[in-house]
Amino acid sequence: MADLPHLTATGAAHMVDVGEKEKTHRVAIAEGYLEMSPAALTALVEGNLKKGDALAAARIAGIMAAKRTWELVPLCHPVALTHLEVEVEPVPDRVAVRCRARAETRERTGVEMEALTAVQVALLTVYDMCKAIDKGMRITDVGLVHKSGGRSGTWQRQG
Amino acid sequence: MADLPHLTATGAAHMVDVGEKEKTHRVAIAEGYLEMSPAALTALVEGNLKKGDALAAARIAGIMAAKRTWELVPLCHPVALTHLEVEVEPVPDRVAVRCRARAETRERTGVEMEALTAVQVALLTVYDMCKAIDKGMRITDVGLVHKSGGRSGTWQRQG
Amino acid sequence: MADLPHLTATGAAHMVDVGEKEKTHRVAIAEGYLEMSPAALTALVEGNLKKGDALAAARIAGIMAAKRTWELVPLCHPVALTHLEVEVEPVPDRVAVRCRARAETRERTGVEMEALTAVQVALLTVYDMCKAIDKGMRITDVGLVHKSGGRSGTWQRQG
Amino acid sequence: MADLPHLTATGAAHMVDVGEKEKTHRVAIAEGYLEMSPAALTALVEGNLKKGDALAAARIAGIMAAKRTWELVPLCHPVALTHLEVEVEPVPDRVAVRCRARAETRERTGVEMEALTAVQVALLTVYDMCKAIDKGMRITDVGLVHKSGGRSGTWQRQG
Amino acid sequence: MADLPHLTATGAAHMVDVGEKEKTHRVAIAEGYLEMSPAALTALVEGNLKKGDALAAARIAGIMAAKRTWELVPLCHPVALTHLEVEVEPVPDRVAVRCRARAETRERTGVEMEALTAVQVALLTVYDMCKAIDKGMRITDVGLVHKSGGRSGTWQRQG
Amino acid sequence: MADLPHLTATGAAHMVDVGEKEKTHRVAIAEGYLEMSPAALTALVEGNLKKGDALAAARIAGIMAAKRTWELVPLCHPVALTHLEVEVEPVPDRVAVRCRARAETRERTGVEMEALTAVQVALLTVYDMCKAIDKGMRITDVGLVHKSGGRSGTWQRQG
Repeated sequence: MADLPHLTATGAAHMVDVGEKEKTHRVAIAEGYLEMSPAALTALVEGNLKKGDALAAARIAGIMAAKRTWELVPLCHPVALTHLEVEVEPVPDRVAVRCRARAETRERTGVEMEALTAVQVALLTVYDMCKAIDKGMRITDVGLVHKSGGRSGTWQRQG
Repeated sequence: MADLPHLTATGAAHMVDVGEKEKTHRVAIAEGYLEMSPAALTALVEGNLKKGDALAAARIAGIMAAKRTWELVPLCHPVALTHLEVEVEPVPDRVAVRCRARAETRERTGVEMEALTAVQVALLTVYDMCKAIDKGMRITDVGLVHKSGGRSGTWQRQG
Repeated sequence: MADLPHLTATGAAHMVDVGEKEKTHRVAIAEGYLEMSPAALTALVEGNLKKGDALAAARIAGIMAAKRTWELVPLCHPVALTHLEVEVEPVPDRVAVRCRARAETRERTGVEMEALTAVQVALLTVYDMCKAIDKGMRITDVGLVHKSGGRSGTWQRQG
Repeated sequence: MADLPHLTATGAAHMVDVGEKEKTHRVAIAEGYLEMSPAALTALVEGNLKKGDALAAARIAGIMAAKRTWELVPLCHPVALTHLEVEVEPVPDRVAVRCRARAETRERTGVEMEALTAVQVALLTVYDMCKAIDKGMRITDVGLVHKSGGRSGTWQRQG
Repeated sequence: MADLPHLTATGAAHMVDVGEKEKTHRVAIAEGYLEMSPAALTALVEGNLKKGDALAAARIAGIMAAKRTWELVPLCHPVALTHLEVEVEPVPDRVAVRCRARAETRERTGVEMEALTAVQVALLTVYDMCKAIDKGMRITDVGLVHKSGGRSGTWQRQG
Repeated sequence: MADLPHLTATGAAHMVDVGEKEKTHRVAIAEGYLEMSPAALTALVEGNLKKGDALAAARIAGIMAAKRTWELVPLCHPVALTHLEVEVEPVPDRVAVRCRARAETRERTGVEMEALTAVQVALLTVYDMCKAIDKGMRITDVGLVHKSGGRSGTWQRQG
């Protein structure tokens, strides 16, 4: 097959070849915040949102979105998640909702994007349910907290 | 139909009734940032990312995700967007990539969530393409900038 | 255009022409049951399922599936739902979980399939979360309860 | 990694960890019925439905839905089906259409939900194509018939 | 809103603004061919394909894909189709299968892409079902046949 | 399990059983053309299309569609692609745009349909972006160029 040129010698976007990577246990944990007004957080905590219980909806939305990460992010490989947890909870000190997601697989690619997508969509869901009260909310500090498995080994966020 | 009870008298999540809302011209603009290391931003700007051209990929991903917002966010109504623009560009001063999205419709519901989803997925796409270089990137300050149309009128972010 | 033949003169499946139908307020209510063992119902009610809270997950799943009805059922028209409620609750007398869904639109086609799809997927979700306890559960008596709007007028289930 | 807390210690919904489960040959067979009026069944059998051939459409719809089960049912794992058959046929004695689906995989999770989803969506498709004739149809007795493979071994419906 | 810059002044891809376009009756008809070996066509016509009846499957696949055109083609607007017919039939003279699709809407954008997508996916489906017999098949001459409605008026293919 | 009848003894469409096939390295390369008027090709090459840069959009659209092949083509198995490249470029001699796609996996089924779907949707995307200039374009000569891996071994297009 040596004479079959790889198509993308240029800078054009492509899904990189992971065929030679090992199937190992890979874990990724991501987190992020939705900062809101005290009034919005209070309504959310007291269950007074017009659209209903935001935290349960956000958890489910985050789980469902993580499974579809490769449909959303063009160059992500399809990956069979073996485990997925999404936690969404109020953080009164920061006047915010925090989401943390943990994704795991036994495949050839990492699952950082899956954990991040879960966080993004869970926070969007809370945003959607609170936006009648507060239009100035911010989704912020969304990033990776931990990653293990695969060639690049374990990585842990500092600070 | 007065004797057909609405099912959700409790706090259970539901898609609110917009049947009586007017079809008007509605616009939403959202923006957000992906903060990264100088090395990652340089690689992106100089076109040296292993996965290819990140900005073009992110724009397309943002556009495609916005159209599917209602599939991702549980209580969003399906909405026919009439216009959608996604801008993704490096902001060297902040050592970041900024995404801005503008969504428009002539339907019964606003399109804030569509603009925000475009920003979120566009930034995830840039993240995916830069993560081999920098695992500590943050998606941050994602929020609404402007909203017009509909009962609640025009809203503009302060500061 | 009289000389442009309609393609399907035979019995081949097709999406029927609704272009001449009126945009009116259309409502559909469907319901159905998941019959299970007393042990499974008790675990569900007491919150002891290994996968977590089944009723909240089922409500969200039903809502999200209803919006995608036209992706699942080949000859359904895409329809913009203006309202959607899904209720999932234990019915101890029948040793079952009952789901009821109410869908509304202002479009050219009815939303019976949307209400039924919500019920089907909500009950599948409860099934999924209880199946470690009981493999003999049955989804049963899924049907339309009420329909109004459109040319065929109001229909109400008897008995 | 012992010090990385699993996020969901509470009853919140999550996709359970199947990473330690074995990849084995797993089979599931499900079935269900759509009960209808004699007039509707006759029209279906004689090919007089306005929307076209219902049985072929239902088979395809069932197959396509089964592959997307994990998109619909929030806590289902993505699974690569290796085999899928959907049978849809009239059962004149019961004045009904029966659907049976057989799903197989070689993965870490069972495929009961995939077989059940195929049945549900195939029957919804028949419903959609017959509803102009009969609005009182019922989808009923949808359940698992057989399951084999995996830790819990073989299970066969009684009676 | 004059002071809200449109984001895309450059050549970056975007979904153009159709907000000012009229809602009118729009029709598009597309067609295309799958050319194959006589052996493959014979197997298809005589119902001897290992995967089953290709024409019925292709029709359904074409219909379902047309509804999802805007999910596949990045800059297509979501559009509510009011009518969709897909015809797939052998053309012995050309040793080929021909697909023709007719799409209609009452919205602000044309449905050429929907008709073309139906043809493309229907032919892919036939390809998939015949490829065990013939790997050298070609999908060819896929194009628009007729278009009416909207600002650009009626267009008819010559020759 | 010998007494569990396979459901489809008839010619009904089904997803064939690949459970006994080997996991091997499989590659498929497909190509196709979009023939257009000189004016359309010039506008595309010079970057004067109203919707923006067509080649970058088409590459991304092709990649994203290939991953969803099994959602579009009813009897395709879900497959985890390990590599995917899509090349889209003008071919002035033919007054056309050529798309070539290369797909790879390590799974039990070939990826011909994935490579073909990438080509089809990439060309549809270019079509969409040029159609304001030329309504008579044709997608043509879409076929497999190379296939390797799996029981049927290596196949190369002649001529």
